[in-house]
Amino acid sequence: MQINLKRIDKDFNIEARNDEGNTLLMDGSKEIGGNGKGMRPMQLLLAALGGCSSVDIISILRKQKQELESVEIEVNGDREPVGVEGYSLFKNIEVHFILKGNVDKDKVDRAVKLSMEKYCSVTKTLEPTAKITYKVTLN
Amino acid sequence: MQINLKRIDKDFNIEARNDEGNTLLMDGSKEIGGNGKGMRPMQLLLAALGGCSSVDIISILRKQKQELESVEIEVNGDREPVGVEGYSLFKNIEVHFILKGNVDKDKVDRAVKLSMEKYCSVTKTLEPTAKITYKVTLN
Repeated sequence: MQINLKRIDKDFNIEARNDEGNTLLMDGSKEIGGNGKGMRPMQLLLAALGGCSSVDIISILRKQKQELESVEIEVNGDREPVGVEGYSLFKNIEVHFILKGNVDKDKVDRAVKLSMEKYCSVTKTLEPTAKITYKVTLN
Repeated sequence: MQINLKRIDKDFNIEARNDEGNTLLMDGSKEIGGNGKGMRPMQLLLAALGGCSSVDIISILRKQKQELESVEIEVNGDREPVGVEGYSLFKNIEVHFILKGNVDKDKVDRAVKLSMEKYCSVTKTLEPTAKITYKVTLN
């Protein structure tokens, strides 16, 4: 899996591209001279977590003939203050799944649990450094 | 830091949005029914790594009056096969910085080292589960 990135302005605006030509934009914070032209790199980690779990949940429920009408996710991340080390990790990440559809609640709860505790590779990547919690609101 | 996500088709196309209104698209793999309308969530982790280190490197060198003319990064990630656990982490991630400009090579090498070994919060987040290596090509 390869991602190619390049700076596309004279500051911190970075375009990332995958092998299929899908792109996304990142930018540095305004404090250091960024221009607000894309997400911050650490925001991508939260987006990836929401995306990964969504894909799992939709896929698991689809196999059970449970079709969700709408899927929304709020992901909140609290970062540690920058220490002497110079970096700032996520300390707590909360994921709130807001799902709608004519679906079985137990099947939904189980699909979310399977994703968040077993299948989602992004969760497993972020878990060693962040405490990840989640909740589900259905209909 | 909050990211809001929602499914925008009937399959796996997910839009993520930050507080400033910046958006990006993700999609599931074609094998499970995705439509290629965005990056895969695990690809976002590689993009975030390239973006985070780029921001650091540009910022460090700018403070030293070293202005890069162009910044490109290739990030390659090898994933473990999916095991009985159900997930698949990155095993090795290689970052190749391709930099151009009338800049001091030692300052560039030091900026890259500082980012990759000290400052970049994305690197620190991915390091517990993946072996991360890097190299620099200057001019």
